[in-house]
Amino acid sequence: MSQSAQQMFDLHREILDQAVDTISSRNFWTPYPESMRKYPEDAVKAAPSNLESLLNQPFTLINSVGSSTEQVGGEVSPYGFELGITYDQPDPNELIASMQVAMRDWRNAGAQARVGVCLEILSRLNAMSPEIAQAVMHTSGQGPLMAFQAGGPHAQDRGLEAVAYAWQAMAQIPAAAQWVKPQGKHDPIVMDKRFHIVPRGISLVVACSTFPTWNTYPGLFASLATGNPVIVKPHPGAILPLAMSVRVAQQVLKEAGFDPCLVSLMPDSVDAPLTKTLALNPAIKLIDFTGSNAFGDWLIQNATQAQVFAEKAGINSIIIDSVDNLRAVTANLAFSLSLYSGQMCTTPQAVYVPRNGIETAEGHVSFDDVAAALAKAVQAFLSDNDRACTVLGAIQSLETQARIDECRGLGDIVLDSEQREHAHFPNARIHTPLILKVDAEQQAAYSEERFGPVSFVIATDNTAHSIALARDVIGKKGAITLGGYTTDEAVAEQLEELAMEVAAPLSLNLDGGIFVNQSAAFSDFHATGGNPAANASLCNQAFVANRFVVVQSRRHGQSN
Amino acid sequence: MSQSAQQMFDLHREILDQAVDTISSRNFWTPYPESMRKYPEDAVKAAPSNLESLLNQPFTLINSVGSSTEQVGGEVSPYGFELGITYDQPDPNELIASMQVAMRDWRNAGAQARVGVCLEILSRLNAMSPEIAQAVMHTSGQGPLMAFQAGGPHAQDRGLEAVAYAWQAMAQIPAAAQWVKPQGKHDPIVMDKRFHIVPRGISLVVACSTFPTWNTYPGLFASLATGNPVIVKPHPGAILPLAMSVRVAQQVLKEAGFDPCLVSLMPDSVDAPLTKTLALNPAIKLIDFTGSNAFGDWLIQNATQAQVFAEKAGINSIIIDSVDNLRAVTANLAFSLSLYSGQMCTTPQAVYVPRNGIETAEGHVSFDDVAAALAKAVQAFLSDNDRACTVLGAIQSLETQARIDECRGLGDIVLDSEQREHAHFPNARIHTPLILKVDAEQQAAYSEERFGPVSFVIATDNTAHSIALARDVIGKKGAITLGGYTTDEAVAEQLEELAMEVAAPLSLNLDGGIFVNQSAAFSDFHATGGNPAANASLCNQAFVANRFVVVQSRRHGQSN
Repeated sequence: MSQSAQQMFDLHREILDQAVDTISSRNFWTPYPESMRKYPEDAVKAAPSNLESLLNQPFTLINSVGSSTEQVGGEVSPYGFELGITYDQPDPNELIASMQVAMRDWRNAGAQARVGVCLEILSRLNAMSPEIAQAVMHTSGQGPLMAFQAGGPHAQDRGLEAVAYAWQAMAQIPAAAQWVKPQGKHDPIVMDKRFHIVPRGISLVVACSTFPTWNTYPGLFASLATGNPVIVKPHPGAILPLAMSVRVAQQVLKEAGFDPCLVSLMPDSVDAPLTKTLALNPAIKLIDFTGSNAFGDWLIQNATQAQVFAEKAGINSIIIDSVDNLRAVTANLAFSLSLYSGQMCTTPQAVYVPRNGIETAEGHVSFDDVAAALAKAVQAFLSDNDRACTVLGAIQSLETQARIDECRGLGDIVLDSEQREHAHFPNARIHTPLILKVDAEQQAAYSEERFGPVSFVIATDNTAHSIALARDVIGKKGAITLGGYTTDEAVAEQLEELAMEVAAPLSLNLDGGIFVNQSAAFSDFHATGGNPAANASLCNQAFVANRFVVVQSRRHGQSN
Repeated sequence: MSQSAQQMFDLHREILDQAVDTISSRNFWTPYPESMRKYPEDAVKAAPSNLESLLNQPFTLINSVGSSTEQVGGEVSPYGFELGITYDQPDPNELIASMQVAMRDWRNAGAQARVGVCLEILSRLNAMSPEIAQAVMHTSGQGPLMAFQAGGPHAQDRGLEAVAYAWQAMAQIPAAAQWVKPQGKHDPIVMDKRFHIVPRGISLVVACSTFPTWNTYPGLFASLATGNPVIVKPHPGAILPLAMSVRVAQQVLKEAGFDPCLVSLMPDSVDAPLTKTLALNPAIKLIDFTGSNAFGDWLIQNATQAQVFAEKAGINSIIIDSVDNLRAVTANLAFSLSLYSGQMCTTPQAVYVPRNGIETAEGHVSFDDVAAALAKAVQAFLSDNDRACTVLGAIQSLETQARIDECRGLGDIVLDSEQREHAHFPNARIHTPLILKVDAEQQAAYSEERFGPVSFVIATDNTAHSIALARDVIGKKGAITLGGYTTDEAVAEQLEELAMEVAAPLSLNLDGGIFVNQSAAFSDFHATGGNPAANASLCNQAFVANRFVVVQSRRHGQSN
């Protein structure tokens, strides 16, 4: 092991141990504070101008493999300006060839060295959170606070969580063992054995435009820690946050004496996408993907030479049976529907409510009044334009923006989407949520994913019907989140049963400072991997265990 | 949890704990003795007549799902007689439907109950080892000692190993947790969380004809312990050992208050195979397969709705660089080549030897003399016909028998295969090994799998060339075992490196009572899953971790 990587391991050992403890206890813990105030004020203040200084020029990485490179770029901030940054596109075959050479040293360095390097990368990414937040904001369109938290510390949490699982899995394999088999009166048979952690091969991480770091770090660090070189293939609309992340990884790898190509960026463009070709390359043994169901399913069905970890999309659902305080419930849901304009893979889309209304502590409330209360809560929450812009962020893509109009006719409008103007970015694509009212029979409307600020309040016969509909829709289309509201423990148990049947995590009776679309690393499993919305969970044993194999050797030994 | 399942868990808890300890230490341990003398003498003696009492009649199971059943059968002992046993073939759709209903109770019973039931099944299978040995012998053709050991205790070891991994993986998930997030001066946010182990769905275990129990128990028990109902689809030529095993599983499930259909037999026939249809059924979420590369690859490429754990075949290789004692080495290899007539997925096929010969403690030995020494060792080992018949067993299939003749022309015959006559079974298909001499250039001969008693001594330029050839052939075709012989530590390290590169476990300088084709549960990983011969290893974390998902629920809580 290189001295430097060992030092990195020793330096971060305590964090690693705490992370390993926490993935077992599932308690709250993080080494990466989510409050901007915990970061140097200067760095936070300088971040916007630091971003500006990167615009309209090439962004260079350390690794220069396949230097006969194409330049790609073309990112446009959803806040209304072109980034004008270009990136090298390495030759895939040259890159893969050099990664295969580099992989040997990385493998032989052992788990401690690899984990040490990963922890050091994460530590530096944490220090860079203000800068990365700017890059996330101006590619994904997230509001500044969310870009900071979800793009910075929360993403780093998920990366660290993956490293902790990888470390735990690798640490379970002893480096050596002596096997002594008794032979009755005769001498025992003695075998000396060695066990090696061997990576599967080249890992491809295909990122999305809405959460470029949060959805990328788990696969990146799970693969890297277990010995696999990683090609990061960013979405053409959100390259910069990953270019910055890859550069940090390359710096640390180089300092620790490894080939920086072990983590490489492979940007492409919408006009000349590379993902399919890369994904079918026989050298690619692991694929982490976040994106559409169609492409995720294509990968699972076609890239059969690789393990595919796919986070796709589903019909996230809320079942309202009864509530104590409707105002608190609708305020909670208003936040969930507004946050990042519904562009989270965890945002609810289908809200099932009995057509005869629900019971509350203040008496019966009709279906229409539940829908109206939700609309009112969203309106109230977004009444301050500055706060609205901060929470909503900007719409990442033109397709999502267009979808709002396309969906207006799918039901009765409870709350119409309106455009907002940002104080600093007049060209930002900012739109408030569209809420539609439909009948349970209008499945075609609410059982297709409508990515963006579009949700449906669905009139059902009763809660049993709501549960049956959710079971059916999630069974077919999947879901990453499921919310339920009931004051009846028997119904709560039915919702718990539903959650198990459709393999969606349940958030019950959220009416305070926790929202169904939030998922906390080390404690909440993000997606279960058990329904069509995702075939993997962030993170668990299954997310890391198959990224390496164990190769043993044995020879006759002498009993000690 | 049903009381009875809890009692089973308590009863076997110590064995479980020892198994979990041993998969970490990789030391020698087993609760299932491999010596026949440790089993009641009466049971061992009565086993052959017990088998006879099963012949020429239907074999009945407890579960009667889909009772409008076809009868299938047609097994023929490789020792030369028809078994004449028939088995119910349930209707697949009815069976799957009833399994999906039964799965809920099995899931809700929890890990302790499921593991308790699995351990009780294994314990009863162990007690039945003498009877199961007879069934294995007269379907696979294994000799009586091997049928006892590999079909009985060693298979049970692998089943227990899978249960231990499953238990370890499930035990890592807490049933509940309280998540307390500090909020500075304000009260912390408190969430109460529950975590459920949820099975993936119906599990299909596709068995082979040569190791009906050994290759079936790992997948069966890994799936069952993690909550998945299991359809056991035996090879049409080796149904009985699995019918007996499934009957035991059904008895234990019933006693513990579960639906016996949770483990069901789905026999089919060569003329009307069911596996492809079953494998593509959307309800099938897990497939364990042992068999041909063609079919294993078909499953991986087509049954993409399921996790596929495939053990296929490869070109198991031996590289001879130099030896101390050639006689001891060839005696060791003679056993490996003779055991069960090379019908093990671990039997060496390609033996690479430098064409200029090798160094030994007694001086230089030419290539031809190495080949001749191997031939002589096999001849000597098989000179006693009774011992030969016991070690060789019988050839399972007519195809394997025919292959011996087909291969004779592939090289120069070093040792010809001869037919032997069994003292008690005059019609048994017993054939000694065929050993051919070829040049490294004759890759078409030795780089195709020649399942059965066929091996090649391959003349190479030198050991570096041997290593390069093995790297190339195993890279393309895979291998489940790799053996090496050298007196030079530098070469030993090259072999270790080769093992890592091709992801094949290395046995170095075996010249005593351990053989390259043996693999001991709890210590040796059988196959690595990292080359084309298998995509999974028996057993490791990856073998169990993806057989279940974790579904959580959370609600606001009160801080303790």
